[in-house]
Amino acid sequence: MKKILIQFDTDEQPSTFDRVVAVDAGAEELFSYGGISGDNVTGLVHGAIFTRGPADLKNTAIFVGGSSVSEGEALMKHVQKAFFGPMRVSVMMDSNGCNTTAAAAVVAAKQHLPLNSTSALVLGGTGPVGQRVGQLLAAEGCNVTLVSRSQDRAAAACEAIAAHTSSGQLQPAAGSTTEEFQALCAGKQLVVAAGAAGICFLPEGSLAALPDLQVAIDLNAVPPTGLADVGATDKAKQVEGTVCYGALGVGGTKMKVHKQAIRQLFESSDVLLDTSEIYNLALQVAGLATDE
Amino acid sequence: MKKILIQFDTDEQPSTFDRVVAVDAGAEELFSYGGISGDNVTGLVHGAIFTRGPADLKNTAIFVGGSSVSEGEALMKHVQKAFFGPMRVSVMMDSNGCNTTAAAAVVAAKQHLPLNSTSALVLGGTGPVGQRVGQLLAAEGCNVTLVSRSQDRAAAACEAIAAHTSSGQLQPAAGSTTEEFQALCAGKQLVVAAGAAGICFLPEGSLAALPDLQVAIDLNAVPPTGLADVGATDKAKQVEGTVCYGALGVGGTKMKVHKQAIRQLFESSDVLLDTSEIYNLALQVAGLATDE
Amino acid sequence: MKKILIQFDTDEQPSTFDRVVAVDAGAEELFSYGGISGDNVTGLVHGAIFTRGPADLKNTAIFVGGSSVSEGEALMKHVQKAFFGPMRVSVMMDSNGCNTTAAAAVVAAKQHLPLNSTSALVLGGTGPVGQRVGQLLAAEGCNVTLVSRSQDRAAAACEAIAAHTSSGQLQPAAGSTTEEFQALCAGKQLVVAAGAAGICFLPEGSLAALPDLQVAIDLNAVPPTGLADVGATDKAKQVEGTVCYGALGVGGTKMKVHKQAIRQLFESSDVLLDTSEIYNLALQVAGLATDE
Repeated sequence: MKKILIQFDTDEQPSTFDRVVAVDAGAEELFSYGGISGDNVTGLVHGAIFTRGPADLKNTAIFVGGSSVSEGEALMKHVQKAFFGPMRVSVMMDSNGCNTTAAAAVVAAKQHLPLNSTSALVLGGTGPVGQRVGQLLAAEGCNVTLVSRSQDRAAAACEAIAAHTSSGQLQPAAGSTTEEFQALCAGKQLVVAAGAAGICFLPEGSLAALPDLQVAIDLNAVPPTGLADVGATDKAKQVEGTVCYGALGVGGTKMKVHKQAIRQLFESSDVLLDTSEIYNLALQVAGLATDE
Repeated sequence: MKKILIQFDTDEQPSTFDRVVAVDAGAEELFSYGGISGDNVTGLVHGAIFTRGPADLKNTAIFVGGSSVSEGEALMKHVQKAFFGPMRVSVMMDSNGCNTTAAAAVVAAKQHLPLNSTSALVLGGTGPVGQRVGQLLAAEGCNVTLVSRSQDRAAAACEAIAAHTSSGQLQPAAGSTTEEFQALCAGKQLVVAAGAAGICFLPEGSLAALPDLQVAIDLNAVPPTGLADVGATDKAKQVEGTVCYGALGVGGTKMKVHKQAIRQLFESSDVLLDTSEIYNLALQVAGLATDE
Repeated sequence: MKKILIQFDTDEQPSTFDRVVAVDAGAEELFSYGGISGDNVTGLVHGAIFTRGPADLKNTAIFVGGSSVSEGEALMKHVQKAFFGPMRVSVMMDSNGCNTTAAAAVVAAKQHLPLNSTSALVLGGTGPVGQRVGQLLAAEGCNVTLVSRSQDRAAAACEAIAAHTSSGQLQPAAGSTTEEFQALCAGKQLVVAAGAAGICFLPEGSLAALPDLQVAIDLNAVPPTGLADVGATDKAKQVEGTVCYGALGVGGTKMKVHKQAIRQLFESSDVLLDTSEIYNLALQVAGLATDE
């Protein structure tokens, strides 16, 4: 019986990236749908769960993707609502690569820092990737400051994260100028830049002025990068005493995690892969998993 | 040369159900199209028949599906109109599972009753599945009463069926209350409920009051079922002296017929699988086929 | 690693013809997209080039198709603009079969005529196929007259071709009546009819009145054909001393070229197959390729 992955993409055209990864991860048949939302997904989920018998449903799985993380989150809920008891299939959510990217970034930091005693700053912390980075860092016991231009939005993101994890410490902060960003970085061991393309938080030379900073991760691949001292391909590169990772530098781990996640979907019919589950996979991929 | 199945679905998004079944039935490549109608199908059929040579065209086939049976019927005609002499491929129509469901239901009845001397009632008899059940029962020599809320629509459906088969006897009937349905059931050996979801024709306890009834089939899987005494998973279950089948109880045969039909499409380039051909397949699947 | 072909079709529904050929040419996974234009292709190209590593990108390729050649040409430019240095994949353009058809037609002529000393007339010479036939003939050193109903459009097409090749000679001509077309044919050794469906340039019996004509090729498969003396299935058929080819007569070569082109896409990640490259493939397929 062939392994079928059903790709529900919230964009009009289903992502080529997710399709290539699915093929390379071993999905034998790929059903790709674009323009999927809560309005049209229920019948498609029912068609998927009412064909093969319960014992065979582990060979069918669903991937939720698309460029909008909020649409993907809503779609994920609709997909799960359409299941009936044992009539269900495994499902993974990774809209815009949010979960695999955040997991790869935090795993990179964990290779250099004792996260449960680390003070971390997440720039662009209310965006889809930034919020997931904040959640994973908090779950690891970090003291996390989530930065947004708006104090209110930063506070709301902290609250949303607190609903997922009770570990760590979370506080919101507002900033919109280079000086404010630099001031917020003071005393932090870890800075992760997860802002939108084109936003530069720290100009060139900033790292040299941050003596406590040990790890800097910039998740923006398109120049100008969010941290001007970090190159997109940096991978544990030492810059002014700081270990730097660029977007492509964490990309290798991200790709491995994405493929491993697809493979795991087919191990049973009740696998659910969202932020924390994908992070656990990333820990395994990086050899950092501990027996719990 | 790979077996290619081209799925033309009249819905915006092509059915996952039909895709999974196609894969499981052995189609090696599946081209799935949504939003197909007479307006855009001709070029797609031409593209399918003008690539491989006539001797190889048996490796390409077309499946017409979607939730609307009437749109599927119209599309089926457009597909066939686009063929040119030997430049043609096999084609199957099963919008909303209408043909495979009706075939599985009548085959279930045939396992318990001598259909050519049976009086049968089809509730919801003017709907797409009901009308097909009526056609197949008439072709088997049954005395069929087709029930609708409107006498005129029931009469029109009987006329439409008579154009397909001259066997059996057909008469229309109107009914809209429990009492009318119960009265119409009196003296019948077979009752098939093929109404829309949510319509209950016979309330609990009705079967006990129908001493002549031998087989009751309810094709509605979503509660409330059409015959309250019949459970969705019933499969030849004895209830008050009546053999009962629910929607899932005939589902196993339906799935086998659907897969067998897909496989048969690739035996030559001129296979046409509609109501009566799919019923013949169902007879074979059930071991009821006779040498003609 | 599987060979993935990404089909970008400018029509709403991706061509079944191109899909079947892709499968038969050995593409192991086919991602088919309809409704693609410069507005939505860039992200899809990025998704294709940013998944597999540079060394593996030869296993991913792009096919640009659809019924509109001008839309395909524009899309082809957008696709190439989305590449980044080594992050690129091979790409082929054959909207409406324009390149493979023109290549097969000129290769047919070349089997009977020394093209560098041939006078050729292209009827319907400003259409997508006609213009490509003119380009290929000029590149072979022909003296080409490109005919349109409008002298201005014929002149513009000649100029467009001159930008691609400096060989041969090109002149525009206008014609709209049988007498004008017949007069333009006088003294030509080769006539290629590449007009729209339903346009008959030369009525029955015309070939007998053209003593210099050696090869006549009609690329219109739908009756009435563009040259009434040529049958759609003619393949090097002698008619009144002229070697005739119909649309289906060149179709065998066209199909071989199309499949060979798909296979070539996967030989490296920087193959670009447009008019002249596809013609070189056609020469190889026909055994006419010379060591350059």
